[in-house]
Amino acid sequence: MALQLYNTLTRKKELFKPINKKNIGLYVCGPTVYGDPHLGHARPAITFDILFRYLSHLNYKVRYVRNITDAGHLENDTEGEDKIVKKARIEQLEPMEIVQLYTLKYHEAMSLLNCLPPSIEPRATGHIIEQIEMIQKILKNNLAYEVNGSIYLDVKKYNQKYNYGQLSGRNLEDTVEGTRDLEKQTEKKNPVDFAIWKKANPEHIMRWPSPWGEGFPGWHMECSAMSEKYLGKKFDIHGGGMDLIFPHHEAEIAQSNAANNCSPVKYWMHNNMITIDGKKMGKSLNNFINLQEFFTGSHKKLEKAYNPMTIRFFMLQAHYRSPLDFSNNALKAAEKGFTKLINSMELLNNLPYTESSSYDAKILENKCYEAINDDLNTPILIAHLFEGVRIINLVKSGKETFDLKNLEKMKHVFKVFANEILGFSTKNTKNNDSVIDGAMEIIISLREKAKKEKNWDLADLIRNKLKRLNIEIKDGTDSSSWEIKD
Amino acid sequence: MALQLYNTLTRKKELFKPINKKNIGLYVCGPTVYGDPHLGHARPAITFDILFRYLSHLNYKVRYVRNITDAGHLENDTEGEDKIVKKARIEQLEPMEIVQLYTLKYHEAMSLLNCLPPSIEPRATGHIIEQIEMIQKILKNNLAYEVNGSIYLDVKKYNQKYNYGQLSGRNLEDTVEGTRDLEKQTEKKNPVDFAIWKKANPEHIMRWPSPWGEGFPGWHMECSAMSEKYLGKKFDIHGGGMDLIFPHHEAEIAQSNAANNCSPVKYWMHNNMITIDGKKMGKSLNNFINLQEFFTGSHKKLEKAYNPMTIRFFMLQAHYRSPLDFSNNALKAAEKGFTKLINSMELLNNLPYTESSSYDAKILENKCYEAINDDLNTPILIAHLFEGVRIINLVKSGKETFDLKNLEKMKHVFKVFANEILGFSTKNTKNNDSVIDGAMEIIISLREKAKKEKNWDLADLIRNKLKRLNIEIKDGTDSSSWEIKD
Repeated sequence: MALQLYNTLTRKKELFKPINKKNIGLYVCGPTVYGDPHLGHARPAITFDILFRYLSHLNYKVRYVRNITDAGHLENDTEGEDKIVKKARIEQLEPMEIVQLYTLKYHEAMSLLNCLPPSIEPRATGHIIEQIEMIQKILKNNLAYEVNGSIYLDVKKYNQKYNYGQLSGRNLEDTVEGTRDLEKQTEKKNPVDFAIWKKANPEHIMRWPSPWGEGFPGWHMECSAMSEKYLGKKFDIHGGGMDLIFPHHEAEIAQSNAANNCSPVKYWMHNNMITIDGKKMGKSLNNFINLQEFFTGSHKKLEKAYNPMTIRFFMLQAHYRSPLDFSNNALKAAEKGFTKLINSMELLNNLPYTESSSYDAKILENKCYEAINDDLNTPILIAHLFEGVRIINLVKSGKETFDLKNLEKMKHVFKVFANEILGFSTKNTKNNDSVIDGAMEIIISLREKAKKEKNWDLADLIRNKLKRLNIEIKDGTDSSSWEIKD
Repeated sequence: MALQLYNTLTRKKELFKPINKKNIGLYVCGPTVYGDPHLGHARPAITFDILFRYLSHLNYKVRYVRNITDAGHLENDTEGEDKIVKKARIEQLEPMEIVQLYTLKYHEAMSLLNCLPPSIEPRATGHIIEQIEMIQKILKNNLAYEVNGSIYLDVKKYNQKYNYGQLSGRNLEDTVEGTRDLEKQTEKKNPVDFAIWKKANPEHIMRWPSPWGEGFPGWHMECSAMSEKYLGKKFDIHGGGMDLIFPHHEAEIAQSNAANNCSPVKYWMHNNMITIDGKKMGKSLNNFINLQEFFTGSHKKLEKAYNPMTIRFFMLQAHYRSPLDFSNNALKAAEKGFTKLINSMELLNNLPYTESSSYDAKILENKCYEAINDDLNTPILIAHLFEGVRIINLVKSGKETFDLKNLEKMKHVFKVFANEILGFSTKNTKNNDSVIDGAMEIIISLREKAKKEKNWDLADLIRNKLKRLNIEIKDGTDSSSWEIKD
């Protein structure tokens, strides 16, 4: 049993062998903080949260770096207006106010999804000097050139020594053909070249002095400079969404090679994309649902609110390298499944044990390790846990038995795999909100009973007591609902 | 009625007149993130949260900048080892891992204290370039000098044109006499000079290239550079603890004058210090209690856990310019007072109104504005709210009356002053926990009723339904208690 990870670079599953024995460097591309966090942010965060949790479980000391892009990410990746500056203009705020606003929202959403915070969360604007230094190295190595205060990586020249396209599998000729003519292209020697430093137009607010005049780093630079600073020239794992393979990660490899003559990453990992009702998310399709809207059910495409844990569970029911389609029906099914899992874990805590055991919990544990070791196969892992759920229910009904040892092992398996590795928290679902929901259900049903028995005094008494808790009961024709008033 | 603020610079209360009509710039010194957040962090955060909330209530557009010091703050302010580097060495982490760890803890504690996040939260390491640029201006103005790769502000020369000591009220001769001989002093022309850039020793990890070799900014520089970047050369209000008046804020004024020939701040505001059981907090006195310990009651000096709202309420019962002593007795009294306030606010939501009013709520509103306008006099404001509490209880018992207009005004006064301006949240104290408590009380009393009526089926049904919520009922001789099982 040993961890295998699919390496995008080699296009196969490989045995995971860390560069250093105990310490692992993990870099994951974080958000560009110019808008509300959405499923496209949640999937890489959850995917690499599983990896971070599992590597930590294996007793590795993991330095998990996930960046915040707060400058330099232009509308068409490296052309057009800076995404943050544009949003700042629209909302009439300072760009850094936009950064703060959406960084806080991102942190809140990730925390609700029970993603552990990374060890370091570096920002592009916090590493302008490091980026400039790296660009200087690339220039010194003659693999970039300056035009009008902008610096471009010379991809053709780079490709003579290295392989531009090694990660994405593109060859340079195809890439050249696929490159659209964009405004700034005239400055480039070759359309495939990409900016690693851009001269700032007079109206560009986010700008810094550099040896080439005032400007800002190209979007790809930050990850190269920051991963090198915190993880070294070569580190273990780099993760991100597969939409980042080209050009972003391909460019990262090129930048590191060009600066350090060293390919930066041993294992490249990419999560697949998300669709909603079978379609790519997009503002124009009216299916752009942000995470807050999922959590509150406030988007018109949503039939109800979905707990963050439902979203997490749903995502992990698919393998990270598979595409994943969100729909109300799929989420409602996930909600049911998750509730079943959590209820069984609670049941497990109150199960009796007998002298002998009809079930060997060690076998389940082994299967769980096998699944997670197989390139983080969470859907198989979850399926194994549901096999455990089946056994728990059989023990409950007396059809199977645990002895103390197997009962404890079973508890341990669920604690380790469901709570610690898959990161299923019961806090957000059960405690508080669902205790209130459950208690209110009991109260409402007792009041319904009183009404049926025409005990109007008791029904009113309950209503008035609830009112003191700021809870209002609304009597419907068949049933009553309630809400907490502010 | 207009806002007056005590200006440390002029040593008197002044009418607050913003530099621009609608937009206010507010800068507050934030934490050096190398340890757990404590009361010394909470007090300025809460003080300037009140100011931020009140200015926003007055419809100003406030840009509230509070920094994170993540480099350059040395053990003896500007001499000794970098506080973060030292902690990183002790905990065997990368300095930026220390920064992340304690920034997250700080954010969590401030959020529990219901302090609104600032509009921008800039970091020293994110503004090395801006600091270097400002140092270059000071050098160009001949008010600093370089020695061995470090840059010192020439305080004597500065004092010929400006007044070093204008904020702290010290004169230069006293300052010179009070300056201890410290190791690096030999480099300085004069003991009062202070480093604005320090050469990095070979072992110093956090270092950046500069025109003077590798080094790092002096601690005072970041606030000058970052406040200028986000608020301009001259902005409205600068806040912080009074321990920062000298040398930190005095140095900020000197740096801005030296670079821009412009005193940076119109109103300087400082909160007073905190003691615990009459003594200064300190590790050696065993009275260093961090906020998490207050919230959980886990420090041996604490008799119980104190809700974050109790801490907030207690702090605001003192004026921000008064010293404040924490003790179990004082906190328990504050807890009682806060509960009384919150209960009365709930009562207010359910009060009846009559045709006529014996009380004019407008008078209370005016008094509240008077108090907050008087240099944020929160203890007087709270006293007025308790006068309101007294009236609410008199109305409840029929001894005073509200008509609809006065009832609505009363609700408005409490919403605006208690919730919006003082930032007393009922979420952390009441919602959830107390809703559960309240709902459980109802359920238990209904079950008691069933038992009295010998309706054992119903009593058992309720018990079983609660069990499914992991709530266990314990029947006592006179009454039943309950607890949530894990």
